[in-house]
Amino acid sequence: MHVSINSLIKQGDLEALAKVLNTLSPFEIADLIANKSEEDRSLLFSLLSPSLASQTFDYLSLHLQRSLLHTLPTMQAVSLLKDLPPDDRTHFLQELPRGVIEAWVKLLPPDERKLTLKLLGYPIGSVGRLMTPDYLAVKMEWTIEEVLDHIRAYGHDSETIDVIYVVDDTAKLLDDIKLKDFLFIPRHCKVRDIADNRFVALSVYNDDEMAIEAFKEHHRSVLPVVDEKGILLGIVTIDDVLRLSNQEATEDIQHIGGVAALREPYMQVPFFELMRKRAGWLVVLFLGEMLTATVMVYFEDEITKAVVLALFLPLIISSGGNAGSQASTLVIRAMALGEVKLRDGWKVVEREIFSGLFLGAILGAVGFFRIAIWSLFSNVYGEHSFAIALTIGLALVGVILWGTLSGAILPLILVRIGVDPAKSSAPLVATLVDVTGLIIYFLIAMVTLKGTLL
Amino acid sequence: MHVSINSLIKQGDLEALAKVLNTLSPFEIADLIANKSEEDRSLLFSLLSPSLASQTFDYLSLHLQRSLLHTLPTMQAVSLLKDLPPDDRTHFLQELPRGVIEAWVKLLPPDERKLTLKLLGYPIGSVGRLMTPDYLAVKMEWTIEEVLDHIRAYGHDSETIDVIYVVDDTAKLLDDIKLKDFLFIPRHCKVRDIADNRFVALSVYNDDEMAIEAFKEHHRSVLPVVDEKGILLGIVTIDDVLRLSNQEATEDIQHIGGVAALREPYMQVPFFELMRKRAGWLVVLFLGEMLTATVMVYFEDEITKAVVLALFLPLIISSGGNAGSQASTLVIRAMALGEVKLRDGWKVVEREIFSGLFLGAILGAVGFFRIAIWSLFSNVYGEHSFAIALTIGLALVGVILWGTLSGAILPLILVRIGVDPAKSSAPLVATLVDVTGLIIYFLIAMVTLKGTLL
Repeated sequence: MHVSINSLIKQGDLEALAKVLNTLSPFEIADLIANKSEEDRSLLFSLLSPSLASQTFDYLSLHLQRSLLHTLPTMQAVSLLKDLPPDDRTHFLQELPRGVIEAWVKLLPPDERKLTLKLLGYPIGSVGRLMTPDYLAVKMEWTIEEVLDHIRAYGHDSETIDVIYVVDDTAKLLDDIKLKDFLFIPRHCKVRDIADNRFVALSVYNDDEMAIEAFKEHHRSVLPVVDEKGILLGIVTIDDVLRLSNQEATEDIQHIGGVAALREPYMQVPFFELMRKRAGWLVVLFLGEMLTATVMVYFEDEITKAVVLALFLPLIISSGGNAGSQASTLVIRAMALGEVKLRDGWKVVEREIFSGLFLGAILGAVGFFRIAIWSLFSNVYGEHSFAIALTIGLALVGVILWGTLSGAILPLILVRIGVDPAKSSAPLVATLVDVTGLIIYFLIAMVTLKGTLL
Repeated sequence: MHVSINSLIKQGDLEALAKVLNTLSPFEIADLIANKSEEDRSLLFSLLSPSLASQTFDYLSLHLQRSLLHTLPTMQAVSLLKDLPPDDRTHFLQELPRGVIEAWVKLLPPDERKLTLKLLGYPIGSVGRLMTPDYLAVKMEWTIEEVLDHIRAYGHDSETIDVIYVVDDTAKLLDDIKLKDFLFIPRHCKVRDIADNRFVALSVYNDDEMAIEAFKEHHRSVLPVVDEKGILLGIVTIDDVLRLSNQEATEDIQHIGGVAALREPYMQVPFFELMRKRAGWLVVLFLGEMLTATVMVYFEDEITKAVVLALFLPLIISSGGNAGSQASTLVIRAMALGEVKLRDGWKVVEREIFSGLFLGAILGAVGFFRIAIWSLFSNVYGEHSFAIALTIGLALVGVILWGTLSGAILPLILVRIGVDPAKSSAPLVATLVDVTGLIIYFLIAMVTLKGTLL
């Protein structure tokens, strides 16, 4: 099928193309045009019926939506943007430059323009940016018959009718009732008869990570959004939350890898944008690590006397770094998932002290015996090989304990001072552990090798 | 309220406790008992009405479910397990030891036992393990009236009735129709009249990551599951997919941090279990990094002659490591999200060669000028400071280019040979980059410092 569409494009047989395209589902078309050139994409799109075009548009990735709107005639572009569900429109617009947002919003019909500006007025990263005002609300006094009539009349415009909301005259949310519950009772009953006045709602100013938590905890597919007075403003559906949850996980992973969050898929990010996101962290890390060179100057004498110490430098440094990144990854993720709260701080520290000692003891023992046994067969570490083995073993315990502790404590401190640890722990832990690891190593060597090599 | 419950527990006033508890929602009770001791937890639970108990049980975390079933009388435990939705029961059982699973399954009523064994028969990590057979299916010839009667009769047992499935006499899936679509047409019409014979289905043997993809792509809240003949076997709901997606992200993050995936929340993992998951990786990394000590022996002469080279060792090593972890994190996540496929390999490599050169040039320049300018004011790097600055600058370019390239290529190679890169790239990249980084550094130094220091 794809082949025939390619050949139809080549032949320029637009009539046949339109015919084939309009038999496909929106998802199939979205999938098809994702792999086409920008030019073909806008050609194919212009052949779709208006309703198919808007459904297909909603299935495209943010990146493709943008490139498509750019190439289509303004009239068609505005019409696509108008037909997007309000929450998806917010999602599309919110990351564009301010001037571009204004230009698009100006072209929308007055009602949609007002709504769009209202949704964009909520803070970035808030529940307000996720919600859509397309829901169904009924009153307590209505009969089930009236409710079903209401659903028939307005259900088409609602993003979901799986849950119907009950509000009072001031639009205050009183209850949420599943559509299926309406089907199981006689038509003349009132909404009041099945209401239990119990509901879970998101606040419009809540952080969107709280929305993810709420959906996970409450096993719901849609949740209502209210303002501080309890007035129903909109709903958030779980498909947007799944998308958001994936996006946040990607950002957290990129931060751990030392990259500022990319807004677009890896292959689509423009090269210099990618470099900006990466060079920033790399330079910060590099400047931090330069401290290692500064610290090393103080131990130049020791290295001159005992060059053997330099041989183990990379091993010591990297072990401390690995232990630190284990601890910080565990603590940061546990905090992101709400498993660890700030008040658990001491318990975490206690746990990591024991972890650090335990892991340090294992690696220290491996390091000690590796050198001690090796020295039985080779003279590579000279006559003081036992003292060297002891130095390395003890340094590993110290560096790993310290790395583990810093990795656990630093994220806690960052949360305490109001900084997101997922965004900034990695470089801090790395620098801290490397610089202090060196000092620990050489201080231990100055004691254990005193009178022999130093 | 929590305070009063605590005091009621202390007073041992079980009657009053039962009264208070049974006015709460399942979620509120789940939240409440999560923070109680094991003993109080099972006391509170035994006071709940059977239906409230089973609803509450479904809201508890896996960890709490397990500890609770352990302490409750067997009869009550079996009844809770029986009342769990089949998909949640699979989730609960599947990570228990084999003997424990068998013991529980034996206690279930015959129907539930058969069903449970069937679901547990699908491979771990497959869609079969996510699905529930509690769905509603209708026939093409049925009238809307008959469909609504069917929903009223059986809808209570279905996990969701937002989507109704149309099957033929062999249970082959023919269509999926939203409940709301039934509400908008006359009662005497047939299902056939609104069917479009178009649906998206998961295969029961699909990898569960494909389920996450499908839900993200198709904007659905529930998807049907079929076997290789298209026979409808069950449904997967999006709330389970959200939970799964979070869990996979956590595992990926833990792997990047060099920890084997934890099955339980950080604070709940037993200490020695946590150590096992961490020590394994740390020891593997350590053994890999020991190669650095082996390599360094070959350059002992160079260090003895030019101790200054040792001063920059940590800086060089860590810069290569950082560049490598940036690249591997980006590529691994992009592959996990399906943004990068194996066939894009060369494009990725090309992109990362340019990235490595660009980033290397920036850090190389910073390193060069830092040393060159510093030397104007200080004699810390001796008389050959310009040659040293050049050495460090060039080594940074080489090490960062190499780190970036290895970080990008290694995950691709792992995918090619059928290994999940998220699970094993981090340690390989770290070891590879550190060991080869050293070699690059010293080889460059042997050229640039020839005739001066070496």
